[in-house]
Amino acid sequence: MSMEVLRSPIMVREALFPQIMRGRSVGLVPTMGALHDGHMAIVRDSVMENDLTVASIFVNPTQFGPGEDMDKYPRDVDGDITRLREAGVDILFMPSAADMYGEGFSTFIDVGPIAARLCGAFRPTHFRGVATVVAKLLNIVTPERAYFGQKDYQQFLILETMARELDMPVDMVICPTIREGDGLAMSSRNAYLSEKERSVAPVLYRALSSAAEALKGAEASPAKAKAMMEDMLRAEPLADEVQYIGCYDPHTLQWLEEFSGSALLAGAIKIGPTRLIDNVLVWK
Amino acid sequence: MSMEVLRSPIMVREALFPQIMRGRSVGLVPTMGALHDGHMAIVRDSVMENDLTVASIFVNPTQFGPGEDMDKYPRDVDGDITRLREAGVDILFMPSAADMYGEGFSTFIDVGPIAARLCGAFRPTHFRGVATVVAKLLNIVTPERAYFGQKDYQQFLILETMARELDMPVDMVICPTIREGDGLAMSSRNAYLSEKERSVAPVLYRALSSAAEALKGAEASPAKAKAMMEDMLRAEPLADEVQYIGCYDPHTLQWLEEFSGSALLAGAIKIGPTRLIDNVLVWK
Repeated sequence: MSMEVLRSPIMVREALFPQIMRGRSVGLVPTMGALHDGHMAIVRDSVMENDLTVASIFVNPTQFGPGEDMDKYPRDVDGDITRLREAGVDILFMPSAADMYGEGFSTFIDVGPIAARLCGAFRPTHFRGVATVVAKLLNIVTPERAYFGQKDYQQFLILETMARELDMPVDMVICPTIREGDGLAMSSRNAYLSEKERSVAPVLYRALSSAAEALKGAEASPAKAKAMMEDMLRAEPLADEVQYIGCYDPHTLQWLEEFSGSALLAGAIKIGPTRLIDNVLVWK
Repeated sequence: MSMEVLRSPIMVREALFPQIMRGRSVGLVPTMGALHDGHMAIVRDSVMENDLTVASIFVNPTQFGPGEDMDKYPRDVDGDITRLREAGVDILFMPSAADMYGEGFSTFIDVGPIAARLCGAFRPTHFRGVATVVAKLLNIVTPERAYFGQKDYQQFLILETMARELDMPVDMVICPTIREGDGLAMSSRNAYLSEKERSVAPVLYRALSSAAEALKGAEASPAKAKAMMEDMLRAEPLADEVQYIGCYDPHTLQWLEEFSGSALLAGAIKIGPTRLIDNVLVWK
């Protein structure tokens, strides 16, 4: 079966319904396109674990705030289609904004306190836009499993909470972050970096992973790990803004006072105009 | 098949999944119990139009505000079970609050401006509680059709908007209001009325239906219809609070300046401690 490219929600439903009624499992991989090896690793997991895989490409306007990079977000539709087809994706859902949001659209899913922390403090309407569009995609595709990358850990936590609390009949699957050779987490936004900026960008992951190592030691505390990460970032002049960096409870995203079971080390920095995020999970 | 009474969402899903995979259609009738003939007319519609009907009884805590009637809301579980069984319902889903809302539950569906008008102005968190619990019920049961009564017109408009905007794969069906012989809309809350209060309660419907008739005349305007309803309610001393009454756009719930196509005449009054709502739709 070669890949179908569909633009309307109704056509996706019509293509999938007979397959689902035949008992075939469907995996969904929602993306904003400009696909990199991180996306493709997720696609491979879905292709392996489901009878059919649906990928979506939609640069979702409701998750961008005013002044954010919606208009210049990287796009490479032809390249994306080739990669998805070669990876064995069955349906590529590629709606327009008008297909997804009719005039006067006003329903949003609010996931509560975990959406206000970390990235949510800097992008106040971002996660309700993400939750709402993913709910729509889940309702259109009705997959058995949906796949997300760990680089956007907070996003996954929010979506997993949404699906669980609203009893959505889907398994939400988190896939490991895929990194460049020097440790930089793959991200479509890395394309924004100049050569010089790109060369220093791995500082975020170096800080997170060094702190993760330290945190496992007997002497270390979340406060010390945070100070260590701040020092490493301060030493890099091109990392001119640290939006947040620290050790958090992986379930509540609250500050971790003490490292007893598990910790999320996460940060967001700006290198020039480009905002980068990354995270590492540690268990004791 | 005799009616199954199930308490856990997982058991409902397990009971329905093989039926749905055999191509059987499912109708859902969500209720808060204390069933009256209005509920039963809705149940009959679902039983007629679907292979299987699921009714739910759940007095949903998230749709009651502080000081509202959650604790004294009428309950008649044995009577309800008998009526539903006799009507041909296949599954009665009757979860506890703990089955529906785990500790720290924090996901809510916000349906925007239409939830802030009419009843929403007096019950500010009511409709997000309704939308959220109905989304959960739809996700647990995955019905082809879900049925609601017109007496709660604003509730239906909100739920229909939610389902459409979130691409939920369900038809939302509105069923006519069923009335007592004297015009009073059937409602579980009518049980709160004393004999004297009960005797004057039809004043709300009389006001709405008289204004509806007047509105069809050449001379009448929404403003005149509203004044007429206010006069009729003022003439009834036991109707001691009019929360709102007027002519609204049936889609936006905004004040109607002019009656050109269709109008919703709707009101909420208190008779003693009991809050009653009703509405009538008119077309030109």
